[in-house]
Amino acid sequence: MKTIYMDNAATTKMSRTAIDAMLPYMEEHYGNPSSLHTVGQIAAEALDKAREDVAACLGCKASEITFTSGGSEADNQALISAAKIGERKGKKHIISTAFEHHAMLHTLEKLAKQGFDIELLPVGKTGTITAEQVKNAIREDTILVSTMYANNEVGSVLPIAEIGAICHEKGVLFHTDAVQATGHLHINVVEQNIDMLSFSSHKFHGPKGIGVLYAKKGILLTNVIEGGAQERGKRGGTENIPAIVGMAAALKEACAHIDEYSKKVSALRDQLIDGLSKIPHSVVNGDLKNRLPGNVNLCFEGIEGESILLMLDEKGICASSGSACTSGSLDPSHVLLSLGLPHEIAHGSLRLSLCEYNTQEEVDYVLKEIPPIIEYLRNMSPLWKDKVSGKRQFFL
Amino acid sequence: MKTIYMDNAATTKMSRTAIDAMLPYMEEHYGNPSSLHTVGQIAAEALDKAREDVAACLGCKASEITFTSGGSEADNQALISAAKIGERKGKKHIISTAFEHHAMLHTLEKLAKQGFDIELLPVGKTGTITAEQVKNAIREDTILVSTMYANNEVGSVLPIAEIGAICHEKGVLFHTDAVQATGHLHINVVEQNIDMLSFSSHKFHGPKGIGVLYAKKGILLTNVIEGGAQERGKRGGTENIPAIVGMAAALKEACAHIDEYSKKVSALRDQLIDGLSKIPHSVVNGDLKNRLPGNVNLCFEGIEGESILLMLDEKGICASSGSACTSGSLDPSHVLLSLGLPHEIAHGSLRLSLCEYNTQEEVDYVLKEIPPIIEYLRNMSPLWKDKVSGKRQFFL
Repeated sequence: MKTIYMDNAATTKMSRTAIDAMLPYMEEHYGNPSSLHTVGQIAAEALDKAREDVAACLGCKASEITFTSGGSEADNQALISAAKIGERKGKKHIISTAFEHHAMLHTLEKLAKQGFDIELLPVGKTGTITAEQVKNAIREDTILVSTMYANNEVGSVLPIAEIGAICHEKGVLFHTDAVQATGHLHINVVEQNIDMLSFSSHKFHGPKGIGVLYAKKGILLTNVIEGGAQERGKRGGTENIPAIVGMAAALKEACAHIDEYSKKVSALRDQLIDGLSKIPHSVVNGDLKNRLPGNVNLCFEGIEGESILLMLDEKGICASSGSACTSGSLDPSHVLLSLGLPHEIAHGSLRLSLCEYNTQEEVDYVLKEIPPIIEYLRNMSPLWKDKVSGKRQFFL
Repeated sequence: MKTIYMDNAATTKMSRTAIDAMLPYMEEHYGNPSSLHTVGQIAAEALDKAREDVAACLGCKASEITFTSGGSEADNQALISAAKIGERKGKKHIISTAFEHHAMLHTLEKLAKQGFDIELLPVGKTGTITAEQVKNAIREDTILVSTMYANNEVGSVLPIAEIGAICHEKGVLFHTDAVQATGHLHINVVEQNIDMLSFSSHKFHGPKGIGVLYAKKGILLTNVIEGGAQERGKRGGTENIPAIVGMAAALKEACAHIDEYSKKVSALRDQLIDGLSKIPHSVVNGDLKNRLPGNVNLCFEGIEGESILLMLDEKGICASSGSACTSGSLDPSHVLLSLGLPHEIAHGSLRLSLCEYNTQEEVDYVLKEIPPIIEYLRNMSPLWKDKVSGKRQFFL
């Protein structure tokens, strides 16, 4: 059975470009870039080149790029750095949103325990916030606004440039967790008024275990990982050259094809959304207009998300009910709850996340397989029978 | 010109075993282990298997292994976790040594700013400490003793089992930074009374960007990186499966050959130490008996370490003057200064770090090339001429 991978928001298949870029640095050029000898200097040159390539994709300077072990570390470092800057200025108010990734929310909780005043803006039914909400929330003692660029579960894309403009008007730092957006949407940190931005390589066909924190010149970073003098002393640990080189190659390739891939992928996405939303008692989650090209997310009333996934897996279809990062938990997704969905509905979620490797045939197959699975699962559910018989109410 | 790589303490060439173990997880099994579908579960199985393999190499349980982005992160997390445990018990005294890696020293400085009482034991001329020193330093309010397993610059191996026994007798936690020892020396955390241990994969022919923190059951870890529920909620971020699998393969291979490689490598090491120490006005640094199999470290009076490195590089020999992690700095190594060497001598250090890939021919070549380089550099130095003419005193 052919595998149909529609869980690209969780992680992506590495591109041949990324693997081929990495291999010479795994096999031959294995040096430590801090070493003075030739083997080390070959690694150091690769590091410089990768940093320039990544900077070019974001529209910033190479010196504004810090390599981290991934998106989570970059998010942690952005928040902790901004908090430290705020502390020195006596500003302890941080604005974020209710549906951030846990790398953000858990770090914000940690900062709250240290005396920071954390305000999470509500995201509303379509899973977004407005620049106006941010404007109204900013206070004299606000040091940072941090919002996702695009949500990992429901795919809504936030008005980043507008939020950034408000922040700059008010003299507040602006960070965005762009893990789901980087390589998929056009980003220019200068034009979009972004002071700090985090992303992870494995969401755009690059290697795992590597990410980036962009921080505008003048923003003093606080170490999350103390150690040697690597990354201008702001991130200890021998640089992971193969992964850094692989990430840069993957990002360059992704950014060169954003329009082409976006057009292809969003056409497939729209077919899936149109087809699946015809299933009765279902709802599409997120914003239909400002949406990641690859994101499909629906809730089906009367069903457990996990049951759909297991049945889809038997048909060779890899999907998710929400974020992979919290899949161990039995609670419904905090993202779907933040959109105002009741617990029962949030439990019945299905996320299909596409990439440019997906095909029309795969979409046709998925559209054929899902409706009978939903029907089968509903027929097994006593809750569903109660709803059909009128003993209980439908939500959707 | 053939490259002779003798900087294995900085980083190592990846083994074919490690690369071959990684490739299927880069090319084909790219899933996120948190995903419920088959692609994710293949990754999850690989993660479990790697964790068991690593645990078997250390003599601990798989559940006691946390995967990190490297040795620095593992060191940071060990210290921060122990400090948090101490805080809860009202114990704020931490004992370490003066010649730890900066991943340790900088984290200890951070803890000192938070009110912890950090005591760094002096390491003496041979670069080691005794269990007696530890015993005398432990107080009622000591929460942690943390010492290197083996020093990265001078190669001295510390009496770990004895230090651990003292700690356990006194009810104090014991952590060791085993970055230089793992894969090169026999380690058994139970027999050696080790509560926490950190290491990095790229020091034993594994991939960069991955490491391990072992923490004995019952020790509550504090997150360095907040995020998803990965690693039992103690380390956020999508697991770097290719690197984890590659590390496990490299460690298994290294541990299976410790005696064989150690015998070969230490024989080459001893030839280098014997030959180079015949150069007048030189000194071998570190302990001659309790020494890493691959470590050669000498100081040559009247010479700048960096000049030796550049001239060796022209001959195809890759060496180091000390730790690669601090090579940007013009100060002499804090490790050599901690051994009581004067600044002038510490500046003239040379570290050759061998592995099992090095050959007799390479050692012969290096022994032939180094003496004339030392002589040449000394003849260029006005300081040296003053010493020879009696205007200045020799240290060595």
